[in-house]
Amino acid sequence: MNLKMISYMLGRVILIIGAFLLIPLVVSIVNADGAFLGFLVPVTLMTGLGLAGIFLKPKNLRMNISAGFVTVALAWVLLSFFGSLPFFISGAIPNFLDSLFESVSGFTTTGASVIPDVEILPVSILLWRSFTHWIGGLGVLVFVLAVLPKSESGAVHIFRAETTGPKAGKLTSKLKVTARILYLMHIALTTVELIALLIAGMSFFDALTTAFSTAGTGGFALKNASIGAYGSLPIEIVVMVFMFIFSINYNLFFLILIGRAKEVLKSEEFKTYLVILFISVAAIAVNILSVYDNFWTALRYSSFQVFSISSTTGFATADYTLWPSFAQSVLVILMLLGATAGSTGGGFKVSRFLILVKSFFRNLQRTIRPRSVKTLKFDGEPMESSVVDSVHSFFMAYTLLLVGGSLLISLNGTFSADFATSITAAISCLSNVGPGLARIGPAFTFAEFSGFTKVVMSLLMLAGRLEIFPILFLFYPKTWNKTF
Amino acid sequence: MNLKMISYMLGRVILIIGAFLLIPLVVSIVNADGAFLGFLVPVTLMTGLGLAGIFLKPKNLRMNISAGFVTVALAWVLLSFFGSLPFFISGAIPNFLDSLFESVSGFTTTGASVIPDVEILPVSILLWRSFTHWIGGLGVLVFVLAVLPKSESGAVHIFRAETTGPKAGKLTSKLKVTARILYLMHIALTTVELIALLIAGMSFFDALTTAFSTAGTGGFALKNASIGAYGSLPIEIVVMVFMFIFSINYNLFFLILIGRAKEVLKSEEFKTYLVILFISVAAIAVNILSVYDNFWTALRYSSFQVFSISSTTGFATADYTLWPSFAQSVLVILMLLGATAGSTGGGFKVSRFLILVKSFFRNLQRTIRPRSVKTLKFDGEPMESSVVDSVHSFFMAYTLLLVGGSLLISLNGTFSADFATSITAAISCLSNVGPGLARIGPAFTFAEFSGFTKVVMSLLMLAGRLEIFPILFLFYPKTWNKTF
Repeated sequence: MNLKMISYMLGRVILIIGAFLLIPLVVSIVNADGAFLGFLVPVTLMTGLGLAGIFLKPKNLRMNISAGFVTVALAWVLLSFFGSLPFFISGAIPNFLDSLFESVSGFTTTGASVIPDVEILPVSILLWRSFTHWIGGLGVLVFVLAVLPKSESGAVHIFRAETTGPKAGKLTSKLKVTARILYLMHIALTTVELIALLIAGMSFFDALTTAFSTAGTGGFALKNASIGAYGSLPIEIVVMVFMFIFSINYNLFFLILIGRAKEVLKSEEFKTYLVILFISVAAIAVNILSVYDNFWTALRYSSFQVFSISSTTGFATADYTLWPSFAQSVLVILMLLGATAGSTGGGFKVSRFLILVKSFFRNLQRTIRPRSVKTLKFDGEPMESSVVDSVHSFFMAYTLLLVGGSLLISLNGTFSADFATSITAAISCLSNVGPGLARIGPAFTFAEFSGFTKVVMSLLMLAGRLEIFPILFLFYPKTWNKTF
Repeated sequence: MNLKMISYMLGRVILIIGAFLLIPLVVSIVNADGAFLGFLVPVTLMTGLGLAGIFLKPKNLRMNISAGFVTVALAWVLLSFFGSLPFFISGAIPNFLDSLFESVSGFTTTGASVIPDVEILPVSILLWRSFTHWIGGLGVLVFVLAVLPKSESGAVHIFRAETTGPKAGKLTSKLKVTARILYLMHIALTTVELIALLIAGMSFFDALTTAFSTAGTGGFALKNASIGAYGSLPIEIVVMVFMFIFSINYNLFFLILIGRAKEVLKSEEFKTYLVILFISVAAIAVNILSVYDNFWTALRYSSFQVFSISSTTGFATADYTLWPSFAQSVLVILMLLGATAGSTGGGFKVSRFLILVKSFFRNLQRTIRPRSVKTLKFDGEPMESSVVDSVHSFFMAYTLLLVGGSLLISLNGTFSADFATSITAAISCLSNVGPGLARIGPAFTFAEFSGFTKVVMSLLMLAGRLEIFPILFLFYPKTWNKTF
């Protein structure tokens, strides 16, 4: 393990992300909202530490896969720490552990909040909350890779560890160009949403932060009642459309960009995702007819909630914990499944589910005809067995984390976390959604959980966002073997 | 698909199992409990149909794997039907669907009951309920294989489909001998429990039925308050010990029988199971200290509940839904995991879990060293990749059935099945446990669920007992292709 290379890389990450904090710092000073120290301190710390890291440039710039994964995991831990300082120092969140939870929840695009009343927060803090979603969604290190002057050894491992889905899709042969294109698309789509929200009648600040939160499929809102507070159908529709867009694989946007739009409709994952969304919206709309006075109202709330949960954003326009059990169960399944690979959304990912299903039927056929040799295909291409194996491993790890996580959450000391609360809390954190059922429904915050529970949840959020393996490698003894 | 061979085999199954109904028939007549028609009708029907099936003996006696699986699945459907007739015709359960549910629950050794007051049932009905556990636990067709004059073609597929665990363990080279040894051990162990219960102070009838229920890891009891009704520590200890024994792989008893007891301690599954039980008992005992007045009482209830749930029996001495969330979560995990392979217990099975864990770490190592070729070992023997693949498929199917099952249960029309109820109902049925959390806790019966919900639950119980694939093959179009 090339530790010097890891700290060199981390130094640059801290330095570049530290620059991001200058934006809320300026906003804080201009608005005189009293939170500027909260940004000044981490900026100073990050500049100092970042420069120190760069200064110690190693001779050997090689980085193998485990080093790449460890770099990403450590970068996220460091950023969560520095990102929490504005909340803590400004006094927006008086408890440090709570600040850390909010920061992790922001970067991982979960959107679970410990703040009971967000409407009294300084504007710079609100901007920072949403901005963590925006940068965390597409990837902090992917951004760093995009702005670095030249491609690095090990960059491919870093890229692979931070982008979502069973297989990292490189858009071009050069990773650096891929990272740049991804961020350009991210900026462009966010800008389009910003404009659409302005047209729909939002104020500029609300539109900007909402666009940031949507782009990261995060869920932090400016209002305690989330998007429902605006009571505006146009705003709901814009947010809904963009929650959907940001839960789609960016590779598909790239295909449209280079004039191969037809291929988008060939994506098996995209088609499956559409079918799942359609069935879910329809099933829930029919199921909640008893709650609302007419079909259109039911459809309005059903579709917003389905797009919000399936994209793992977590914005709310209704308290779905008051809906019938069936509708709630559908939403929990959507939480588990999550969005598509290569998007800013979280969860298990539709493509992984498809791979499991295909592998299942292949095995079934083998039971009948043991000598049949059939390779699995995805989007018409044969799939490497290593990808199938890693999806099976991911499935196993996801399940274990859910079971273990909910068990630990059920130990919560401050109040009794019932079965529905602890299991959906684990699902919601691991899938980076935000809300869940029962005590973590849209009407609640995460403030009242114990410190221990918040640490467990934070780890689940990090594991979910980085899709488990980078975090796992951090704790896997063989990672640290000298021979690697 | 050799349909003639399937019906020939089914005919013999019906005939042999029909003979079992003669026992409660005689008991009913001797006790004049008024239920004898309930047994006479199915005995007559089964004799007629069975003879018809045998009469049409096919020329081609070959049976491939899919035919074997389909035979087992159909046999279980038929037996569930015939087994329900005593409940329905005797009037013990006035509703036919309810009778079918009780019968499926009996044969699959689930032990979920729709009868609000079992204490007023005729003795012959009580005997039959427990007897379905006894015969269903080790396998209905395994019994048929044991009593048939000679080994059949396809017997190995039938054996494989009905015994539990990732790999059917043949004790001897001859399957027929294996089946006989298994049933001899089953009878011997049941007899030992019967004697132990008599010594502990139970009446003969109670001891006999309790022994039957325990041997099948079923859970039907003679009292509404289950084993707790006896309020006797000796009885609790005997039942607890035998719930444990019957959740152990019968192959291990065979090893002891042939003087190779030392190898028992080499079984990785057995050792893991012991560790899981020990940790669970201790964790729950500490967790429920707040509910009971001293550690020994807590330990008494904790250990009984852990052994009952982990063996998938479902007997109760306490209403664990009144325990803290953590204890309940541990019990739910034990339900999911279930007992060991080759026992009468249900659930996912500890050995499958071990195989998943091993496969997980193998894949993790491959990520670091892509060219490492390491075969998986189990109990020191290399494991075929087809077994690993089928465990992955099983995991996938188990998860899908749980998710789909709980979704359908959440639709229950008679009352709102909340999240904890619907999800633990699916787990409990699929793992053949019996009770669950919330509305299916030990204090409730399954009577109030809608007919549709009961059908869903019955299918889950059958899928769980036959470990999914035989039931799946029934619905898999390729099974019915002529070429197979």
